[in-house]
Amino acid sequence: MNTTAKLLLHCPDKPGILADVTNFITINKGNIVYLDQYVDHIENIFFMRIEWELNDFFIPKDKIEDYFETLYAQKYEMMFRLYFSDIKPKMAIFVSKLSHCLFDMLARYTAGEWDVEIPLIISNHPDLQHVAERFGIPFYLFPITKENKMEQEQAEMDLLKKHNIDFIVLARYMQVISEKMIESYPNKIINIHHSFLPAFVGAKPYHAAFERGVKIIGATSHYVTTELDAGPIIEQDVVRITHKDAIEDLVSKGKDLEKIVLSRAVNKHIERKVLAYKNKTVIFS
Amino acid sequence: MNTTAKLLLHCPDKPGILADVTNFITINKGNIVYLDQYVDHIENIFFMRIEWELNDFFIPKDKIEDYFETLYAQKYEMMFRLYFSDIKPKMAIFVSKLSHCLFDMLARYTAGEWDVEIPLIISNHPDLQHVAERFGIPFYLFPITKENKMEQEQAEMDLLKKHNIDFIVLARYMQVISEKMIESYPNKIINIHHSFLPAFVGAKPYHAAFERGVKIIGATSHYVTTELDAGPIIEQDVVRITHKDAIEDLVSKGKDLEKIVLSRAVNKHIERKVLAYKNKTVIFS
Amino acid sequence: MNTTAKLLLHCPDKPGILADVTNFITINKGNIVYLDQYVDHIENIFFMRIEWELNDFFIPKDKIEDYFETLYAQKYEMMFRLYFSDIKPKMAIFVSKLSHCLFDMLARYTAGEWDVEIPLIISNHPDLQHVAERFGIPFYLFPITKENKMEQEQAEMDLLKKHNIDFIVLARYMQVISEKMIESYPNKIINIHHSFLPAFVGAKPYHAAFERGVKIIGATSHYVTTELDAGPIIEQDVVRITHKDAIEDLVSKGKDLEKIVLSRAVNKHIERKVLAYKNKTVIFS
Amino acid sequence: MNTTAKLLLHCPDKPGILADVTNFITINKGNIVYLDQYVDHIENIFFMRIEWELNDFFIPKDKIEDYFETLYAQKYEMMFRLYFSDIKPKMAIFVSKLSHCLFDMLARYTAGEWDVEIPLIISNHPDLQHVAERFGIPFYLFPITKENKMEQEQAEMDLLKKHNIDFIVLARYMQVISEKMIESYPNKIINIHHSFLPAFVGAKPYHAAFERGVKIIGATSHYVTTELDAGPIIEQDVVRITHKDAIEDLVSKGKDLEKIVLSRAVNKHIERKVLAYKNKTVIFS
Repeated sequence: MNTTAKLLLHCPDKPGILADVTNFITINKGNIVYLDQYVDHIENIFFMRIEWELNDFFIPKDKIEDYFETLYAQKYEMMFRLYFSDIKPKMAIFVSKLSHCLFDMLARYTAGEWDVEIPLIISNHPDLQHVAERFGIPFYLFPITKENKMEQEQAEMDLLKKHNIDFIVLARYMQVISEKMIESYPNKIINIHHSFLPAFVGAKPYHAAFERGVKIIGATSHYVTTELDAGPIIEQDVVRITHKDAIEDLVSKGKDLEKIVLSRAVNKHIERKVLAYKNKTVIFS
Repeated sequence: MNTTAKLLLHCPDKPGILADVTNFITINKGNIVYLDQYVDHIENIFFMRIEWELNDFFIPKDKIEDYFETLYAQKYEMMFRLYFSDIKPKMAIFVSKLSHCLFDMLARYTAGEWDVEIPLIISNHPDLQHVAERFGIPFYLFPITKENKMEQEQAEMDLLKKHNIDFIVLARYMQVISEKMIESYPNKIINIHHSFLPAFVGAKPYHAAFERGVKIIGATSHYVTTELDAGPIIEQDVVRITHKDAIEDLVSKGKDLEKIVLSRAVNKHIERKVLAYKNKTVIFS
Repeated sequence: MNTTAKLLLHCPDKPGILADVTNFITINKGNIVYLDQYVDHIENIFFMRIEWELNDFFIPKDKIEDYFETLYAQKYEMMFRLYFSDIKPKMAIFVSKLSHCLFDMLARYTAGEWDVEIPLIISNHPDLQHVAERFGIPFYLFPITKENKMEQEQAEMDLLKKHNIDFIVLARYMQVISEKMIESYPNKIINIHHSFLPAFVGAKPYHAAFERGVKIIGATSHYVTTELDAGPIIEQDVVRITHKDAIEDLVSKGKDLEKIVLSRAVNKHIERKVLAYKNKTVIFS
Repeated sequence: MNTTAKLLLHCPDKPGILADVTNFITINKGNIVYLDQYVDHIENIFFMRIEWELNDFFIPKDKIEDYFETLYAQKYEMMFRLYFSDIKPKMAIFVSKLSHCLFDMLARYTAGEWDVEIPLIISNHPDLQHVAERFGIPFYLFPITKENKMEQEQAEMDLLKKHNIDFIVLARYMQVISEKMIESYPNKIINIHHSFLPAFVGAKPYHAAFERGVKIIGATSHYVTTELDAGPIIEQDVVRITHKDAIEDLVSKGKDLEKIVLSRAVNKHIERKVLAYKNKTVIFS
């Protein structure tokens, strides 16, 4: 596999953007291996993800961002991000007591499914330390009380910084994260909520679903924003239930949903295929 | 096909109910062709639907209800309803301007899929009169304003009574029904709401879904209660959308959901397979 | 709505195609309102659908094809098709005895959901004439026997030609079409098969599914080729069943699938979003 | 939790079975906590699963089978099986090189989701030994060649017997099992096949699905019989794909299906909710 550059961008839609960007790459001998674009005709925004091989590319890797900024980003008022396939993102996992999402992610990681590094797991409870140990990943315990929350989060953030963590996955982490921490990782904290949002925001969604008598339950993975369970949705899925399902059946069926939905969202994020915009996401193909 | 009796019941769960009821039918030479039962172990309620052929049944059709009441219903504090397969329920359809649910139901009706009679269609707009005419069903127009709502609904109810209507289907009827009318048809008014309830209650759910950036949209069929979009859910289904779907795409995809979900719910109701209990439904198999 | 041109093309993938084509449109003052492209990296084929408004476009409508052929198609060895939004495709429906797909399509047609004309319905049985009449569409009866098949199909083809039919929809048409007719409409005959192909090819798929004890049944819409039920698949969907479902339940659940799957496929075809290639389809977004 | 007895049975349908069986339990002071029954009206077979608490039950645990045999099974020509909730079934897992199903099952096992014992894992390749070790489960390697197949399988069966294994799960075990071994475990070997059976029987189903251009792929869990991929289906599920998905995308999406479908089937088997009959399964609710 050759090293590739992955460029995600959005800007006001104008004639010529697509031609300009693809020309830029082609003329400089970049072999385009992926292109997906989309125009929001209501907001008039052009979105694009393009990926090309760097082996024959004229522009040195460390200058691409600069060149692109000068030549195109300013012209088109673009917001863009550039990633390289040979730099693995670093991901931290936060957990509490439930193991299903954690096991699912570590199994994928161990099997080499994800192009990511997981330097550490953080928890507010000791229960899942054994899972971390099975997979040989450092486990840090930060018990949280009302009194120590601020300083514990600060300690967590120091640890994350020390390990150059790029993004955080809340794998059924049962603790609301403070605004300060959320704002330090904008669109970089992925949560799994065990309902079909926006139905059943907040605590105990399976109980609420059972009470309401719904015939389908869901799970939602989203970026965390300062408003609870209201951030940009990355992925959702559902499963059918019946009147015969008790709350514990909902919990059990829901677990399978949660881990699959969360892992799909994390995978899309790792592949740099998610672009958050105005509290929604563009998910590239 | 022999005529069958269909008995739906619920009562506090006690040992012996199932044996007693099946014995009652078997001893009296009724051939059981269907049995589905369910125990809610939290509320301790026994639910049952049982159907048997009447051709050799000892008890005359018009005395079954009386016998069952005396012999079992009092003993077990049962609520029960008895239906006969040779008596078609009478269904009224209420519509406004959108034709997809109406067409879908009339197509099934005309093809003989449903064991029901549809004596009339009621609307607050003239737009769909042509649909009623294509299928030869009387169409009654009751334009509704704030001023005339009470008397128009009274006129509707008079008409429904005159035709011995058993239940009403709101096929995207865009008018809130008053409490008085709802209470005259308890668990007998079936609505289709174009969202995955309880998400997006009220008007314009597709707009709200678009705004929230969900990845899946749904439709919900439920019995109408006096609280808006909060009655017992009969059936739900969903379809996947992406960021590329504009509101009109949601509307278009949603229409297919709505008509299928509504028709499934109506079909279950016609087959006497829905038992509403405490704002939820038991859907027999 | 402005008139648009819709261009579908495929060719060997080379650098510059996308830039060239979008430049061609932009430079000539065409406003691109849709673009979807895809590269098959195994076969090295570039696929594209692009749509632009013609109101300010420099090149006259009737010369676009010629210009594009000369300037780009030859250069890139493209296969392409050009359509205009103000020319409605003409669709013929073939039916036999089952009405559900026919009703569903005519309801959409009547409601103005589809940008198509339906000049006629052809059948080998008289059963559905009443449906055609309800919607005011000419119904032609061509009873088919082993003896008259060749001449009846010739008569059908003459009729189709006379009405300038662009494509044919087999809406549960229970008669195998001969090679000659299939070859006259390459990738222009859309069939609905009542199974999840390639499972249960041929007659009585619901019976076969029941026998096999599957837990999910499906429906498949595909272009008809000379090999039975083996043409390029446009759309599929499934529904869950249980051991409690008898064959008639499969038939009943399947009908809902069939009509939705067929209508989705027809809709994609009408919108010119299907490109058949090597017995598979590219479905543009 | 009280100890319960779980009785699964089937017999020719006759009046009185249900009453007799429920009476038997009720009269002897067994508290019924679960009952699901189903009549196949075509084959005229009655199927039932009933579960009751044993704490006040008059008949000693070790005599129930004998009593039931004498009193009812002979009378109604029943086939029945009796299980007790305090006896955990013993399950062996067979794997080869792919870890996703194995990880998924061991995560559930470790989290206490399943009421089962897993005394050992058997493999024909050493690749997944590390997984077994992470979860502390003995791993036995039986490399298989044409020459040694018979004796290796015999050694496997000796090992299974020694550990009193009740049933076997083939978790993407890439080796056809011989008739002798299959017949030793009738309806006790659960396989996961990575297609929507009966489509794509045999090797490389994702390649075949890709070639055929399907729009949905599936996974099927079934009991192993001597005919390849043709045993009674326990569970199936599907996921949507598009023309953009390469074979490796099918493999990747399929893995998530496989592990969920297999685990659902295993769970149903552990809960004694599967009754295989005539190459089909009754799945109790």
